[in-house]
Amino acid sequence: MNLVVILVSPRNPLNIGAAARAMQNLGCQTLRVVNPYHVAFREAVSAVSAAPLLKAAQEYPTVSEAVADCSVVVGTTSIGHRELQHPLLLVEPGAKLIRKARGKAALLFGSEKFGLSNDDLSHCQWLMRIPTVDQSRSMNLGQAVAVCLYEIARRDKAKPISMEKYKPATMGQIEQITQMLLDAGRRSGYVNPVVGTSTENKVRRMVRRLHITGRDVSMWLGILRQVLWKLEGNSK
Amino acid sequence: MNLVVILVSPRNPLNIGAAARAMQNLGCQTLRVVNPYHVAFREAVSAVSAAPLLKAAQEYPTVSEAVADCSVVVGTTSIGHRELQHPLLLVEPGAKLIRKARGKAALLFGSEKFGLSNDDLSHCQWLMRIPTVDQSRSMNLGQAVAVCLYEIARRDKAKPISMEKYKPATMGQIEQITQMLLDAGRRSGYVNPVVGTSTENKVRRMVRRLHITGRDVSMWLGILRQVLWKLEGNSK
Repeated sequence: MNLVVILVSPRNPLNIGAAARAMQNLGCQTLRVVNPYHVAFREAVSAVSAAPLLKAAQEYPTVSEAVADCSVVVGTTSIGHRELQHPLLLVEPGAKLIRKARGKAALLFGSEKFGLSNDDLSHCQWLMRIPTVDQSRSMNLGQAVAVCLYEIARRDKAKPISMEKYKPATMGQIEQITQMLLDAGRRSGYVNPVVGTSTENKVRRMVRRLHITGRDVSMWLGILRQVLWKLEGNSK
Repeated sequence: MNLVVILVSPRNPLNIGAAARAMQNLGCQTLRVVNPYHVAFREAVSAVSAAPLLKAAQEYPTVSEAVADCSVVVGTTSIGHRELQHPLLLVEPGAKLIRKARGKAALLFGSEKFGLSNDDLSHCQWLMRIPTVDQSRSMNLGQAVAVCLYEIARRDKAKPISMEKYKPATMGQIEQITQMLLDAGRRSGYVNPVVGTSTENKVRRMVRRLHITGRDVSMWLGILRQVLWKLEGNSK
């Protein structure tokens, strides 16, 4: 992923560290900071847990210099009251465009308090936002970075994974379990011999509604065998 | 979104606050905590910036109680060395399943340091993970919550797949069945008291793989109650 994350005027060392950690988790290597609050930046870089890519982060005095080698420049916003002059995409279609970028793509995040300024935004080609609820739009910086990078890294057509990882039990095994369960029902008095057939059918249907997998058959048989053995002892 | 976020044994007030903020941003209302580090939890709740849903968060002593009214229970993991006993889905197909859940769905996040324990995991039906890079799998708690909720809230363009015809049993019912089955296992000698815990977890996972529907609960309870009653007679 030829993506550069640019934090503009970040103020909080924990957020800088969190952004770097999300980048590391999600496979984005290049971090740049523009005009950071220096105490915070130094603190973040010198933290014991600092990601290597944070230690390698480069600092720029202006957005213009930070994006100079990029061919796509995208700003992030939670759009509040400001009137936006840019095309605005939700993060999903936006991420698709970023993945298609040729050359370096820059993704800008503004300061925790004010976001990107109009001046910062003027360096962007378009803007992207995470679909948050209207009453609570402004996300934590580290979390916004995580969500954007997740969406950019996400496979376009994620393969649907089947839940049924394991083969179902065969009908012979299912019936064996059914019979043992019925046996337990009889020995314990649950199945009444007089109206037994209808109860038997109910139990049989119920067992077939379960998704018993092949690998669970032996455990079922083990439990039932043991229970039957104990129940038998009782009827002697 | 009928989703409950459950933080199990969280240690860091900033992470608890960040998780709550992400929930607020992404439209998820219900937060539960299990066995939190109390100093941290109180600090998080009393923070000036605490989200209202954090102040309303309910505390539970065990995972079992926290998920009792949920019909789908999903754990999150970054899978390290542990051998997983559950189906594991990436967050995208996982989110799709969660969106389709009938009734409440619970999404569990483990402690910052250790993730979910094997005992916690035994209450889950399947697991979900965020596709991180192999060298850096473990995500910050607040960021992991943000990414999962983002993916769950994201509009799904795929066709809805037909749902199960019957409502699933609630997790409280499933656990009741599990406990009675374990009781039968103990009374019959299937569950060895010495190595009991691992067998218990195996049985718990197995029951959760069954997809027991609400309408079958009473039959299960009926059979098990009768079997237990009879087994008890035998041990006198």
